[in-house]
Amino acid sequence: MSKYVIIGGDAAGMSAATQIRRLQPDAEIVVFEKGEILSYAQCGLPYYIAGLVPTAEDLIARTKEQFEEKYKITIHLKHEVTFIDPVSNHVTALALDNQEEVVTNYDYLLIATGGEAIVPPWKGTDLDGVTVLKTIPDANRILKWLDERKEIQKVVIIGGGYIGLEMAEAFHIRGKEVQIIDIADQLNASFDPEMAEHAKTELEKQGIKVSLQEEVKEIKGEGRVQSVVTDKGEYSADLVVISIGIRPNSEIAKQAGIELGPRNAIRVNSRMQTNIENIYAAGDCATHYHLVKQQDDYIPLGTTANKQGRIAGTNLGGRNAEFKGIVGTAVMKVLDLEMARTGLNEKEAKALNIDYETVTIKSRHHATYYPNAERLFIKLIFKKDDRTLLGGQVVGYAGVDKRIDVLAMAITFGMKIDELQDLDLSYAPPFNGVWDPVQQASRVAEKVK
Amino acid sequence: MSKYVIIGGDAAGMSAATQIRRLQPDAEIVVFEKGEILSYAQCGLPYYIAGLVPTAEDLIARTKEQFEEKYKITIHLKHEVTFIDPVSNHVTALALDNQEEVVTNYDYLLIATGGEAIVPPWKGTDLDGVTVLKTIPDANRILKWLDERKEIQKVVIIGGGYIGLEMAEAFHIRGKEVQIIDIADQLNASFDPEMAEHAKTELEKQGIKVSLQEEVKEIKGEGRVQSVVTDKGEYSADLVVISIGIRPNSEIAKQAGIELGPRNAIRVNSRMQTNIENIYAAGDCATHYHLVKQQDDYIPLGTTANKQGRIAGTNLGGRNAEFKGIVGTAVMKVLDLEMARTGLNEKEAKALNIDYETVTIKSRHHATYYPNAERLFIKLIFKKDDRTLLGGQVVGYAGVDKRIDVLAMAITFGMKIDELQDLDLSYAPPFNGVWDPVQQASRVAEKVK
Repeated sequence: MSKYVIIGGDAAGMSAATQIRRLQPDAEIVVFEKGEILSYAQCGLPYYIAGLVPTAEDLIARTKEQFEEKYKITIHLKHEVTFIDPVSNHVTALALDNQEEVVTNYDYLLIATGGEAIVPPWKGTDLDGVTVLKTIPDANRILKWLDERKEIQKVVIIGGGYIGLEMAEAFHIRGKEVQIIDIADQLNASFDPEMAEHAKTELEKQGIKVSLQEEVKEIKGEGRVQSVVTDKGEYSADLVVISIGIRPNSEIAKQAGIELGPRNAIRVNSRMQTNIENIYAAGDCATHYHLVKQQDDYIPLGTTANKQGRIAGTNLGGRNAEFKGIVGTAVMKVLDLEMARTGLNEKEAKALNIDYETVTIKSRHHATYYPNAERLFIKLIFKKDDRTLLGGQVVGYAGVDKRIDVLAMAITFGMKIDELQDLDLSYAPPFNGVWDPVQQASRVAEKVK
Repeated sequence: MSKYVIIGGDAAGMSAATQIRRLQPDAEIVVFEKGEILSYAQCGLPYYIAGLVPTAEDLIARTKEQFEEKYKITIHLKHEVTFIDPVSNHVTALALDNQEEVVTNYDYLLIATGGEAIVPPWKGTDLDGVTVLKTIPDANRILKWLDERKEIQKVVIIGGGYIGLEMAEAFHIRGKEVQIIDIADQLNASFDPEMAEHAKTELEKQGIKVSLQEEVKEIKGEGRVQSVVTDKGEYSADLVVISIGIRPNSEIAKQAGIELGPRNAIRVNSRMQTNIENIYAAGDCATHYHLVKQQDDYIPLGTTANKQGRIAGTNLGGRNAEFKGIVGTAVMKVLDLEMARTGLNEKEAKALNIDYETVTIKSRHHATYYPNAERLFIKLIFKKDDRTLLGGQVVGYAGVDKRIDVLAMAITFGMKIDELQDLDLSYAPPFNGVWDPVQQASRVAEKVK
């Protein structure tokens, strides 16, 4: 009977744990989680802060007790694994409450330590009122501030990526004055600049301020935050959220001699195995094979963490499963605007030295004559030589997620841009035009031939 | 320089005509259309009747003058082609205004005569207040009745398929009492009974009456309709819409010795060619190759008509294009309910002697904790031996069209049901759960292994 140790009790770790249990009814499964909460919907945190999700409990799929009772998993909360010994197959965990060390052996180890929000070495990041948003405790801290200090009015969001924009929306819904600062010359760098511009327009239309190409120098205050200083000015702030990115928690893996990949994520093969045979990794701490780039990438996302966790669990449980790879699909809501992308953007295509063409159209999300046909912008990127679809970006006021899923699948299956016209997609006036907007884009691309 | 004659000026015919013009700038293109209106959105008619689309003109993509000016196409409206001579390459058209015959030669002929609503040989179908809904004149007739006779209150819809249900909704929106009568033991036979049951529940919840397993015997009235008599009772009626199906207008093709296929549709190959080399057919009068059934089928739909028309036009214009086939995708809105299907239903799978399994789940259209997560029911049908996905039915209150498009593509690409879990679909709480409902269904299907 094998003993499985899992480091990290979030999406990847608990997906793996339950999957191992399904396949190995009698195995010993031990989970170490440094926080107080198991597997929850991190992506729901901005909506919890906005007040759209009433309690943190709404975001928690299962409690420790449920995992223990239903799945017979031994769970150690508030235990941080500090050391992996891959020779003797032991891990050392520190009990955060009493600083005692626990040493445990394993037959198989899964590292599912996730990622953490990047905090640059700015002065003032430790001030009261300055935080990242990554965990339920982070969210509760923000909500406590908002609750205790009714005078909080000015919120500065540093970083205009997915979480930054969702947080901007959350504070806007709460009636705060929101200022976004980003060092780049556009919001959300996973979109091409002209597509990201729609987000800036929407934010500004609804009263959120956006300052681009500004480099944060320090966060000022005395005990509590008072302002954010950039290379171009100073923004007074009652609350500051730093959301400039996520990095993998891979230090203990590195120390154990485990190979790292892009952005220092733990390098895994398609079975989620590291370079050490009985050590697996999955989720936001691991690499994510990118089907279009045909190389490992690091794009931490809840969907991928769940998939990788499940696949790791299947393999650890003695069956065989392979992670087929990501295509870089993502979607977000920014106020009334929906933004989605899949595959490569122009910058990524250039970095891979791919000779590409693009086509961009403006359409409507359903039949133009049917009421409330909303604007929809689609950009497709395709290879110049054989016209293989490389990427898609869809921005608009409804129906964006549907089109990005169609494009994600088209890219997964290596479709040519022209073949989109062959698809038997669903049509009725409340749902679509007779040619779906992605097919309309394909038709316009014919002229680029 | 070739001369092209096109019979029928609706979706397929005009798609072909404009495509030929793009490829053959100098060719002579002649269109005969028996009605008064060219290419318009037939699928929008129920919404025109409901009052959601203000005028019939909103449904018309381009006028005769626009086609003539921009595309230099010669168009004869109110001309019905009565005879095709495939030996001498001539067609004879009857000018409906003055009953004069026009005889025209062609190098290439496209038959795009569409379909017509089936009217059974019941007594009383010619009564005032009884109609089908297929054309703008049909819709205008209904609107005229409604306008002139304010006392119209009771509307009987005979047939509970796509158009019947959309018409039921339309009259309901107009505040009429609506009664649906269908001979089958379920609404919309393209769904499996338990999925179609959701539509019945929704209709009845909103006050529309549904009578199943009732065979219409006659329509009674004196001059004007008064009631519909079935084998089980009599329903008083101020207005009756017969919507029991569409059949292809293929008589002149048959007379010309052109081979017919399923349901007497004109048999075409993947290039839209009939068995006579220089005669093509496309749209609601032609067969539609079904990718899953791997045989010709007859499923008249606007999307397919547009595709086939364009492909016919490409081939007629001297290039090469192939119709890749349908998978039987369709979507409709019934009051607040959305219903969609793709691939095979159980009846179709049985007819093909395929040994299949099914899985049905109840889910939510986006993250359960995010506000307004609507109910979504998914049924998947897959081959028992190799688990290839055969069909999908999705019914719910939001996000149905997205899931059916994912399933339509999955079926197009021959995916196994288990492979749905690999897809990198878009995820954020306002759009989805971390596993898309189609992936949730795939996970449940694992237990059927």
